[in-house]
Amino acid sequence: MTTISKLFNITYPIVQGGMIWCSGWRLASAVSNAGGLGLIGSGSMTPDVLTEHIRKCREATSKPFGVNIPLLFSYAETFVKICIAEKVPVVFTSAGNPVRWTATMKDNGINVAHVVANEKGARKCVEAGVDAIVVEGFEAGGHNGKEETTTMVLVPLIRQQTELPLIAAGGIGSGQAMLAAFALGADGVQIGSLFAAAEESSAHPHFKQKIMEAREGDTFLCMKKLVPVRLLNNHFYQEVQKLEQQGAPAEKISALLGRGRARKGMFEGDIDEGELEIGQVAAAIQQIKPVQNIIDTLIQDFLAGKNKLSGISF
Amino acid sequence: MTTISKLFNITYPIVQGGMIWCSGWRLASAVSNAGGLGLIGSGSMTPDVLTEHIRKCREATSKPFGVNIPLLFSYAETFVKICIAEKVPVVFTSAGNPVRWTATMKDNGINVAHVVANEKGARKCVEAGVDAIVVEGFEAGGHNGKEETTTMVLVPLIRQQTELPLIAAGGIGSGQAMLAAFALGADGVQIGSLFAAAEESSAHPHFKQKIMEAREGDTFLCMKKLVPVRLLNNHFYQEVQKLEQQGAPAEKISALLGRGRARKGMFEGDIDEGELEIGQVAAAIQQIKPVQNIIDTLIQDFLAGKNKLSGISF
Repeated sequence: MTTISKLFNITYPIVQGGMIWCSGWRLASAVSNAGGLGLIGSGSMTPDVLTEHIRKCREATSKPFGVNIPLLFSYAETFVKICIAEKVPVVFTSAGNPVRWTATMKDNGINVAHVVANEKGARKCVEAGVDAIVVEGFEAGGHNGKEETTTMVLVPLIRQQTELPLIAAGGIGSGQAMLAAFALGADGVQIGSLFAAAEESSAHPHFKQKIMEAREGDTFLCMKKLVPVRLLNNHFYQEVQKLEQQGAPAEKISALLGRGRARKGMFEGDIDEGELEIGQVAAAIQQIKPVQNIIDTLIQDFLAGKNKLSGISF
Repeated sequence: MTTISKLFNITYPIVQGGMIWCSGWRLASAVSNAGGLGLIGSGSMTPDVLTEHIRKCREATSKPFGVNIPLLFSYAETFVKICIAEKVPVVFTSAGNPVRWTATMKDNGINVAHVVANEKGARKCVEAGVDAIVVEGFEAGGHNGKEETTTMVLVPLIRQQTELPLIAAGGIGSGQAMLAAFALGADGVQIGSLFAAAEESSAHPHFKQKIMEAREGDTFLCMKKLVPVRLLNNHFYQEVQKLEQQGAPAEKISALLGRGRARKGMFEGDIDEGELEIGQVAAAIQQIKPVQNIIDTLIQDFLAGKNKLSGISF
């Protein structure tokens, strides 16, 4: 068993990233049932909706699952309390300072991991006493760091600074990439894009179709004057890009963004005007598959790759 | 032996990237003597200087070595002819269309590899009939692609499209990262930054010192309206960034860049006003070491990492 499997009491060291509008109880429970760790992405939920998803997830799986809480979200404190009250076994926090809530959750028996995109974030994780750090590279979908450090570079850098279990994220869309993450020093992986496109994901079918069609070079990290976010190229993205190339100030980009763009794109399926958060690895996704199939393939390819590597000598 | 070792008749599948102002005959011969493939970076040379470096390299090593030729460079055709006349065994081309010169060089017994930063480039390589493709991710130093695709994502994508030998580049600063590149499907690695900072590199001591001091988040891909290039953060970079955030047109950035900035920074040691090309992995480089030591450490860490991976089971 790997460090991460032991920590979360799961079969495979594969965490499904908590993604707004894509990862409700259906996706999270499917991942947990298939031997990984499913996460309910709370960032697009109200307190009532989160409670409902936690309860439905528990009905749908007897395995451990978790909740992802973006700490800068207005409901963060409420969500921490809900997870404690509902006895959720694992919480992944992101977008904010892990020092604020980690001890409280751990005192209540919750295993806590925090997502970082740079070394500074990793140092805060150590200070906060988290159980594991998610190290997310530039290639990941959704919100990301200003440093633009890739998975290949960031995982070894943070590995040198801490012995805490590390979960690599960003660019991991195959068992081969999962193996690469372990070679870099990770103890597990967090996978977003592959699961956003899974059958059980609550992403709109139009968004899933758009992921299938994505090719290399079709996603970009943008809105760097606000919070950097990786989006799929569509009409909305092109409008953002136009403003950015003109040197538009943050307020103007914020006004264009408006409210509800992510819901519009990912959940309601407006693939032209919506915000479509996805990783670079979308270029490698060709098929909408059930979670069980995705995880089986990841593990088969990881093991086959490991055997192949073992044959290399100089 | 690996595919790449056989192809170039070298001990280890490690290529030293041809880097302007850093990789003359001294660095290239040291890498070849240590069992890798050293490349003379011709992009900063005149024809006479290149001929001199090829001859000195041949005196300094009995092992195979190569020359890197940027195909958009004004001397490209002259350099191809020099490599043929001097019977250079290997040429790596970059920045341009490989279809133009590959067949001519191969007809003259030269092994040819071409550097690409996207899938489109890889397709051109297949068409050109190169012997190997260097797949360079976003995290690499110096000039790079507009697509911003990282090593973790680009290597598996191109692996799926061709059976040609692949050499991964970008973010490879350790034996662990080299192992990760093999896990992703590469047959070898091309390493730049580590060798730019080597004792035998002709980079100015001030530039090497600046590499030692670089931390995570200190390099950025910039000048995207010209040809994207990854630079180390310094006063010149900050001036570029200021213009770019204001949405300045290409001409204005080009005027700021002027001529000779790279020479000024990397070769003459003006670390404030010069252009300092280096990869993200600079953040992991703490020591100026001789090439032999760098390669020994890469191989030791690769093999140790491989043993560690072999112990993973689920």
